[in-house]
Amino acid sequence: MQARSGCPINATIEVIGDKWTLLVLRDVMFGNRRHFRELLAGSEEGIASNILSDRLKRLVAAGLLSREDVRQGQKAEYRLTEAAIELVPIMAHLGAWGTKHRPTTERLRVRAELLQEGGPELWDEFMDELRESHLGTPLPRREGPRATERLARAYDAAVARESR
Amino acid sequence: MQARSGCPINATIEVIGDKWTLLVLRDVMFGNRRHFRELLAGSEEGIASNILSDRLKRLVAAGLLSREDVRQGQKAEYRLTEAAIELVPIMAHLGAWGTKHRPTTERLRVRAELLQEGGPELWDEFMDELRESHLGTPLPRREGPRATERLARAYDAAVARESR
Repeated sequence: MQARSGCPINATIEVIGDKWTLLVLRDVMFGNRRHFRELLAGSEEGIASNILSDRLKRLVAAGLLSREDVRQGQKAEYRLTEAAIELVPIMAHLGAWGTKHRPTTERLRVRAELLQEGGPELWDEFMDELRESHLGTPLPRREGPRATERLARAYDAAVARESR
Repeated sequence: MQARSGCPINATIEVIGDKWTLLVLRDVMFGNRRHFRELLAGSEEGIASNILSDRLKRLVAAGLLSREDVRQGQKAEYRLTEAAIELVPIMAHLGAWGTKHRPTTERLRVRAELLQEGGPELWDEFMDELRESHLGTPLPRREGPRATERLARAYDAAVARESR
């Protein structure tokens, strides 16, 4: 596909600038959903099966997801590539902007808030954990609970508050 | 318009997640183009007149642009709102990602590179200058050349190199 211009903002938008692509990446990234069925069933926005299928294909073609073909009869697994992992800061900023300027719900907001508070240091930790989990890159040694755990705990606490 | 979910990443995408909206904002932000004709004629991506018209209306409705109605017979002027100015860090990250991961051209890349080198400090300066220029907020006193000037100089130098 020919890019519309040589502008790097446009170049990024050509890949992720539509209503669904970033949501699919968000669910792989923050929800650790790696299979078609999980991504379909878990979608907060109710993504349609044909759209999900199309976006997964495009993301593989664009080099943002790899499709791991497993043994016959098993489900294909999608993994983030390094290029996709480097979208974490953009996700964090999109979440911070949405939290500040648009109506959102607490359960779906707490992770964005934590990412904003943690800043680039937390994003780097989270990116290293994604590299370990999706690319097999050994994790640098760090003190304290993992970014992934902290995000999961914040989300679980918000779910518990919501159901009280 | 009903949001598809209460997720803040989705909330942001609902506003800016399409192939043209961010490009229009980019041209107001970095090109200081404030009139319909300028935005149409200067578009590197060749935006169509009906799409530009639609996106300007949506951006005003979403509170990202204000439309200043001037005296009869004069062209309407579009100005960035505070919410739009707070998209600068997202623009910087989109540009950095595109520069690293996609093919781009030098002339259209130099400002993204400068924004990346300058980091959050330069983005803050640029945001303050946009606040002055679009909202009339007095500029905090700072030493040295303005961010806007530095971006313009980098672009002009790349244009000169290109035409050599």
